[in-house]
Amino acid sequence: MQPSPRQTSLIDAVRAALGDAAVTTDPGDIAPWLDDWRGRYHGRSPAILSPDSTAAVATVMRLAAEHGVPLVPQGGNTSMVGGATPPVDGSALIVSLRRMNRIRSIDPAAGLAVAEAGVILANLHAAAEAEGMRFPLTLGARGSATIGGLASTNAGGTQVLRFGTMRGLVAGVEAVLPNGEIHDGLAALKKDNRGYDLDHLLIGAEGTLGILTAVTLRLYPAIAQRAVAWVGLADPETALALLRRLERRTDTIESFEIVSGDSLAQVLKHIPGTRAPLATQHRWHVLIEAVATDPTAEAPAELLERLLAPALADGQAADATIAASEAQAEAFWRIRDSLSEAERASGPAMQHDISVPVATMPRFMIEAAAAAEARFPGSHATAFGHLGDGNVHFHVRAPAGADAARWYAEDAPIVTRFVHDLVVAAGGSISAEHGIGQMKRAELARLSSPARMAALRAIKAGLDPQGLMNPDKLLGLAENPAAP
Amino acid sequence: MQPSPRQTSLIDAVRAALGDAAVTTDPGDIAPWLDDWRGRYHGRSPAILSPDSTAAVATVMRLAAEHGVPLVPQGGNTSMVGGATPPVDGSALIVSLRRMNRIRSIDPAAGLAVAEAGVILANLHAAAEAEGMRFPLTLGARGSATIGGLASTNAGGTQVLRFGTMRGLVAGVEAVLPNGEIHDGLAALKKDNRGYDLDHLLIGAEGTLGILTAVTLRLYPAIAQRAVAWVGLADPETALALLRRLERRTDTIESFEIVSGDSLAQVLKHIPGTRAPLATQHRWHVLIEAVATDPTAEAPAELLERLLAPALADGQAADATIAASEAQAEAFWRIRDSLSEAERASGPAMQHDISVPVATMPRFMIEAAAAAEARFPGSHATAFGHLGDGNVHFHVRAPAGADAARWYAEDAPIVTRFVHDLVVAAGGSISAEHGIGQMKRAELARLSSPARMAALRAIKAGLDPQGLMNPDKLLGLAENPAAP
Repeated sequence: MQPSPRQTSLIDAVRAALGDAAVTTDPGDIAPWLDDWRGRYHGRSPAILSPDSTAAVATVMRLAAEHGVPLVPQGGNTSMVGGATPPVDGSALIVSLRRMNRIRSIDPAAGLAVAEAGVILANLHAAAEAEGMRFPLTLGARGSATIGGLASTNAGGTQVLRFGTMRGLVAGVEAVLPNGEIHDGLAALKKDNRGYDLDHLLIGAEGTLGILTAVTLRLYPAIAQRAVAWVGLADPETALALLRRLERRTDTIESFEIVSGDSLAQVLKHIPGTRAPLATQHRWHVLIEAVATDPTAEAPAELLERLLAPALADGQAADATIAASEAQAEAFWRIRDSLSEAERASGPAMQHDISVPVATMPRFMIEAAAAAEARFPGSHATAFGHLGDGNVHFHVRAPAGADAARWYAEDAPIVTRFVHDLVVAAGGSISAEHGIGQMKRAELARLSSPARMAALRAIKAGLDPQGLMNPDKLLGLAENPAAP
Repeated sequence: MQPSPRQTSLIDAVRAALGDAAVTTDPGDIAPWLDDWRGRYHGRSPAILSPDSTAAVATVMRLAAEHGVPLVPQGGNTSMVGGATPPVDGSALIVSLRRMNRIRSIDPAAGLAVAEAGVILANLHAAAEAEGMRFPLTLGARGSATIGGLASTNAGGTQVLRFGTMRGLVAGVEAVLPNGEIHDGLAALKKDNRGYDLDHLLIGAEGTLGILTAVTLRLYPAIAQRAVAWVGLADPETALALLRRLERRTDTIESFEIVSGDSLAQVLKHIPGTRAPLATQHRWHVLIEAVATDPTAEAPAELLERLLAPALADGQAADATIAASEAQAEAFWRIRDSLSEAERASGPAMQHDISVPVATMPRFMIEAAAAAEARFPGSHATAFGHLGDGNVHFHVRAPAGADAARWYAEDAPIVTRFVHDLVVAAGGSISAEHGIGQMKRAELARLSSPARMAALRAIKAGLDPQGLMNPDKLLGLAENPAAP
């Protein structure tokens, strides 16, 4: 597409200031970055700006403010909610952080690394490993997702139970604010009470308050040993009670994932090479992973055995097994990781990334599934995932034989609003770990308290008075219709 | 003092809406709340408003906005920086949260308690203990300091190494925003990505963005056993290396406090009944506390013995002893807790609550002390405290024979600016745990980056456009001169 006159001026100004390497205008080079990776959102933009340093990002920001051109920051473009896709009207330019891909420092003794926004998660993992350390946040998109995007969206993953989301792993933030000033919070001070916490404000702001250019991340000692258990039990309430029991005795539990008997059956049916970990049948299951970083500490397998024994003795756990080998541990995890794929193989389904207070989750899983199935006859609702985080993936599958295109277009939005209403009634969040982006903007406005919306808008207006940062995300008014 | 006409209207409106119990205008009843507890700040105000519920706070806030009268939120009034003392011009009314003193719920299984802003810290400790749990943040003012004040100032204390500051212990915030709307974030969601994190914005905002009415707090299992070690070693660098070594092997270390040989000598000289823990002389010492919550786990004393043995063997630790009884453990802690008192007994001194990156702290302690003593001949600089938090108390004592009043009035401010300059040069913070309040407002403005100041002001203007919340604190322009 053709740039507008003011976009042309901005592009020329950036080229003059930062050189040709910082500007991409070839439509073929831009095209891959206009759609989200799941193909749900399709934006337009005449150029990608690619600054390679914090100072260069500040230059881009100042020039954009001067020319009044909106910017959409982009890392690996792996958003689940269309958070990095430019507006359809082509009004914004993309700012790619992918050239800012240096790990500036890594200090194993201090347990800290400073990574630029464009560092790919898998590369950070490797760099930490090379130092005998570990960056414990991981997720499926680790080969593409960038540190800047992960921090900007406060990403979660499978290790949140022990380490928290990105918010808990970011020790400091460097960012360029909409006025072009550089906020340098990289010093990783453990105690710092100099007014409002700008780092926490920028984490999870989805690029609407500025552009993260680098973050200081916490590293932990590498894992020396791990053990994975599979436990059969009666219901989610019992599963949570088991988690509480374990948590009181150890802080080495990294994963506690809940899987229903139905979901397990779907996996065994649709995913080749999978087999049930237990010979006995159960209505619910949990996968537990415990680790040790100290090779001289009690082995995690022995620890799990010792802690699960009383639960088996008093019937809290109906049956349990601990993976006897790394291959078996991987096989247990493969079941967990195949749940979404098995679900999709069973027909069209809407997936919801929601959270409720942990103590409420067991009841929510049962009652919300029943309510959804009652409200949408023939549909099938399942909940699985991170019980200990109060965050489960709540899927509603279309009735057998439903026309997929029609169901997605007509029924799915109604299903989603119904699920979100249940979540809000349970005191929960309509976005546990994926953020708001474009996808949940209308639902955020529909379901948030007046206090929250007024405060979010006041902060946005205060820090980005021209409304140039990622303008159609989170709070933006413009709609960017998406086909789910 | 006499209220202004608009203050009179506000007082009448609050009395009409909330009853006589919510309004105090008797000067004798108001007087104790006009000065800070150290007698450094002296404010004026014609009334204290005392709402007893969140809805009542919202009423007060709406009426204050309507009448254009500033409000100063106050809990236990134990601020170290004049953060809860009203302006001297009498323009603001005090809002006391002390009637909001209920612990709304306590859930040992979930490890959560919901406490109103006026709950006194010691009362929360007791309530948690009664449930076999523990709220791990503690500090000297625990008999007066309230939960709302602790959260509003992101208070620290002696257990930060393991549990973090209040920011790490607050799982959710309920607050009345300046527009009178209620933000309810009490649900304690572990994952929640619905835009800017309002809870983190309000924590540490010192009441300048709204009034905290309740918070959800994390509780931990009660301590079953503890052990306290005293270690003699060469220098702060060695102390930090020892901490790193211990941290890699265990996460049960709760305190790691550094004390110089000089400071220890001051305590032994001035504090009756104290004696040196080790028979040998050392230039530096650390006090280490390890705990266990699981009575079946390795005893902390054995753990410390096992972990300190290699450090003694290879000379990292010159000498070490583990308290043989609870009385001896208390005696070790008494030395640490008497450092400030011993310092004061030696003459006038300026105390600084500063932090730098942990890895930088050992060098900073030595170099900043030397620089201060060189710059102010005859003065004596000492640093002690929370090495693992990058937060030490940095004291500069007046030269022997200095006139206290003159030194405080003329020299102390110069000393403080000098120390703050060193801190900023080291990438640190001029307020580690006490906040800015009135005391450090000018220094915050002098030493912060333009990005930080512009962002803080934009946030303040966005959320409190009338500038009514705790107006002369943190960012306020009005000066409230203080005698140190």
